[in-house]
Amino acid sequence: MYVILVYDVDVARVNKINKYLKRYLIWIQNSVFEGEINNTLYERMLEGIKKIISENDSIVIYEFQGKTNFERTIIGKEKSEISNVI
Amino acid sequence: MYVILVYDVDVARVNKINKYLKRYLIWIQNSVFEGEINNTLYERMLEGIKKIISENDSIVIYEFQGKTNFERTIIGKEKSEISNVI
Repeated sequence: MYVILVYDVDVARVNKINKYLKRYLIWIQNSVFEGEINNTLYERMLEGIKKIISENDSIVIYEFQGKTNFERTIIGKEKSEISNVI
Repeated sequence: MYVILVYDVDVARVNKINKYLKRYLIWIQNSVFEGEINNTLYERMLEGIKKIISENDSIVIYEFQGKTNFERTIIGKEKSEISNVI
């Protein structure tokens, strides 16, 4: 599946969650990751996230099955190099 | 179209961009908005965003035409009431 993941975590855990998510997905900009991931790795990633975040943190994951039919528009500074990758 | 919008702007402009985006989309969590929007309003929203943001700010917009085929998973605290809305 393809996922877009957005995190809203306390600054104390930003570095840790960033470092963790980079193992699974592509960094897009602060608090946003994207990428193709299989079910096994996806479940593993969720377990890992749950171990890192605290009760006031929030993660939203958009999961797309099959072909992903979105366009990505970036306004302002393009921080990721994903446009060159995908 | 349906859009997911994620902003990464300096803290000095967070309140302003939040207030502005709430005119067009549904607040999901810090830095994330979603919603159905027509082309006219979409273009107007983009113009407004460009007037608010500064050179180091970044906005990513995922645009979906037609039926939107994603699932939304929230881990941790659910901050938005969108699950009850949509």
